[in-house]
Amino acid sequence: MPQEPNPQRRSEKSRTAIIEAALELCAEHGYGHVTVEAIAARAKVSKKTIYRWWPSKGAVVLDALDETVNPAIAFPDTGDLRADLEAQMWGLLHGVMTEPRTGRALTGLIADTQHDPDLARSLNDDLIRPRADEARARLTKAKTDGQIDPDADLDLALELLYGPVYYRLLLHQGDLHTRAELGKLIDHVLSALAPEGKALARSPALDQDH
Amino acid sequence: MPQEPNPQRRSEKSRTAIIEAALELCAEHGYGHVTVEAIAARAKVSKKTIYRWWPSKGAVVLDALDETVNPAIAFPDTGDLRADLEAQMWGLLHGVMTEPRTGRALTGLIADTQHDPDLARSLNDDLIRPRADEARARLTKAKTDGQIDPDADLDLALELLYGPVYYRLLLHQGDLHTRAELGKLIDHVLSALAPEGKALARSPALDQDH
Repeated sequence: MPQEPNPQRRSEKSRTAIIEAALELCAEHGYGHVTVEAIAARAKVSKKTIYRWWPSKGAVVLDALDETVNPAIAFPDTGDLRADLEAQMWGLLHGVMTEPRTGRALTGLIADTQHDPDLARSLNDDLIRPRADEARARLTKAKTDGQIDPDADLDLALELLYGPVYYRLLLHQGDLHTRAELGKLIDHVLSALAPEGKALARSPALDQDH
Repeated sequence: MPQEPNPQRRSEKSRTAIIEAALELCAEHGYGHVTVEAIAARAKVSKKTIYRWWPSKGAVVLDALDETVNPAIAFPDTGDLRADLEAQMWGLLHGVMTEPRTGRALTGLIADTQHDPDLARSLNDDLIRPRADEARARLTKAKTDGQIDPDADLDLALELLYGPVYYRLLLHQGDLHTRAELGKLIDHVLSALAPEGKALARSPALDQDH
């Protein structure tokens, strides 16, 4: 986890330059080829400045993603659960994962966490869990609104929604979901979550011709 | 992809020793800390011998996994689709992913593929796709047997089954699925795949108390 910066000593300008440099370099060379030296050079700060605020390259990139991805993946609440899920997941796919500035940073960071338990914990605490909590909150509101069943298992629902997306990304299963494929995935999960009275006979989304 | 070894020159004993050494070293030190030098030393062969057969450490580990994981994740066909899926997925989770000899090799290899497009292609061609094809064949047989709907989208079904498992593993979402959680996941997908006449009103698996 990034060390808590000392607010007195922190130069917001340097900080922004470091964050920008980290994402740019990931986009240009791939996360694996980025060094703290190179980030420092691009941001026109010393390595010491970076290490004062972050313990590692991974921690810089994690903060950079954390501060950058929100506009793409914020959870809207229009009252239309399906539209909100689709907007948020489409943002994750095509505003983050396939976006050069953030996509290579994200996959490189996830790769790095396979070797670094501290970074793995930070990835979850700082980046993944807060967004999963937002998704859970949106689904919980849909329960209150009677759009999904009060007994629905939201943890399983989240795994069914986001698991397939990361599976394709990290195991290189071809292109990420198209809008039609994403729509099918969401339809499938929402159909399974529907309140008992409103449930469809079966998920139409698992029909090939849907 | 590993270079096609010349059968005349290939020493099966050396090959086995290299494969074993690669998995042992991954278990002991983590994939990221394993080198071709260390594999050669442990296997009592020269580095040149390894590079004659494989282009990189990743290619060695990929072959090592490919030759090791089958007993754990072979797809049974007992006629009981649910039991077969559970046996195969349980083998993947607890015979491969949490098994020290193969688990750290697998996550390390997947990490490495995020930086290496050739290795990414090999991971899919040699390890992932052949197993996905086995799963698809088992589900296709279940269509023929009338256990799942003839129109069911098997690609979506596979993503719904395996996506959540890799999501937990690679994004460090706590422990892997327990048998009860795995059962819920499978029940959910099978319920969505059920033939129209036999479909349940809604997936019972998404109820929290199931």
